[in-house]
Amino acid sequence: METKIYSKTKEVIIGDDQPTILIGERINPTGRSKLTKALEGGDYSLVLSEAESQVQAGADILDVNIGIAGADEAALLAEAIKQISATIDIPICIDTNNFGALAAALKAYQGKALINSVSGKQNDLREVLPLAKDHNACVIGLCMDDDGIPEDPDRRARIAGKIIDHAVALGFSEQDIIIDCMAMAIGAKPEAAKNTIKTIKLIKSEFGSLTTMGASNISFGLPDRKSLNGAFLTIAIFNGMNCPIVDVARMRQIALSADLLMGKDPYAGRYTTAYRERKS
Amino acid sequence: METKIYSKTKEVIIGDDQPTILIGERINPTGRSKLTKALEGGDYSLVLSEAESQVQAGADILDVNIGIAGADEAALLAEAIKQISATIDIPICIDTNNFGALAAALKAYQGKALINSVSGKQNDLREVLPLAKDHNACVIGLCMDDDGIPEDPDRRARIAGKIIDHAVALGFSEQDIIIDCMAMAIGAKPEAAKNTIKTIKLIKSEFGSLTTMGASNISFGLPDRKSLNGAFLTIAIFNGMNCPIVDVARMRQIALSADLLMGKDPYAGRYTTAYRERKS
Repeated sequence: METKIYSKTKEVIIGDDQPTILIGERINPTGRSKLTKALEGGDYSLVLSEAESQVQAGADILDVNIGIAGADEAALLAEAIKQISATIDIPICIDTNNFGALAAALKAYQGKALINSVSGKQNDLREVLPLAKDHNACVIGLCMDDDGIPEDPDRRARIAGKIIDHAVALGFSEQDIIIDCMAMAIGAKPEAAKNTIKTIKLIKSEFGSLTTMGASNISFGLPDRKSLNGAFLTIAIFNGMNCPIVDVARMRQIALSADLLMGKDPYAGRYTTAYRERKS
Repeated sequence: METKIYSKTKEVIIGDDQPTILIGERINPTGRSKLTKALEGGDYSLVLSEAESQVQAGADILDVNIGIAGADEAALLAEAIKQISATIDIPICIDTNNFGALAAALKAYQGKALINSVSGKQNDLREVLPLAKDHNACVIGLCMDDDGIPEDPDRRARIAGKIIDHAVALGFSEQDIIIDCMAMAIGAKPEAAKNTIKTIKLIKSEFGSLTTMGASNISFGLPDRKSLNGAFLTIAIFNGMNCPIVDVARMRQIALSADLLMGKDPYAGRYTTAYRERKS
């Protein structure tokens, strides 16, 4: 399966026969007080420099989350989308669970956006999917619903199926619903990684859908997060992960290695080019 | 499946429900002129310090290869085994394709050794297996025969089956034949990693055997070998690799991460302990 998202000037193909697409995770004020303060003051310079450095590090798509408690998220997010789009050319993944902010961001974005996210909650299915369809966007479907995030991969796959069914009924193409297979903290749940990998396999075998996940969640609360995130990302890619949301500067080399090992980079062209670029 | 090898004082369990066992690869003069010269002069101090540093890095078993063109390998290897055994307590993997050296090393070793290796070549099956059986050793069975190393995983598995059949006919327990699934340079063969992983899966499904490989081969000729080796090792462990032969100092953290992700390290006890030891 394969889909495309694009900005005004750049197209990204996400597909099973394509190299892994990396969605940069770092434009997100959660736990980052400097970024929060700057945004509260209407200062987008930090957001723009973060966007630029993620592009430099090799991000294919930029996740943009501007959720700050008490702030006017719709205004902040729309403005961030505008300013980022004027500065960098890669497509944006609009990351919000605020319906008004999503509507404002989609209005501000020029191109085919990726939306992060719709869940299997009745309210999301009713509100977010039609709005996404109106804007011809791709949507990340989370394997969670009104009962929370199930651990069981079969239950996760059932929620994914429900989201896909709703979307197709609204006129979406199947490939425009990208399933988030849910990575959880392994420090709390020893089966967390296995459950994500099983979910990826199930999603591929049952629906053939494209897949994503917030890869860094796996190492929450543990030391040496880079090693663990890298190992997890590698296994996930090998099992069908198409466009993970990651800290690109830390994970690009891992993704290049995994693509090479999967036979997606014959004679190591991308791998060695990236190595030379890092060294120069 | 599960087996044990041991030195005079230390036992190591290799098994599917056990943490990954790391066989240290660095006692090998190939391409290391200092080590070669020292050994030619009968000086084992470098070998002993390398052995010690691999134990410090977390090696569970030590691969010992003393192959030097023109030297009396039987005498050198037997002496190396004696000196290493007197200095460190972990079991040894005797690595030679010289029959006389293997016989001398097995005589010098006290415990249940691991032998690296027997292939599917008629000569190996006839000579090496009976000698190994006489010494109650475990043997690594290479998926190659008189026709070389096949790329096709099915053909590799057939060779493994032939070695296992011969060994069992001689009285070996199945678990004492550990199959080397063969890692080859991916820079030359784009399918190399996939072929190794498929071989691991086949070996597990057809024979249930324990598995090993020389993990570093995959990155031969490529830059940033550590990244690529790490990604490959991670995928291999997740698919059933039990006791890879690796540069332990570089790969231990990877193996700990992979074990944690597989649910073999509940609540990350080994992972965090190793982290603290590195930091202290």
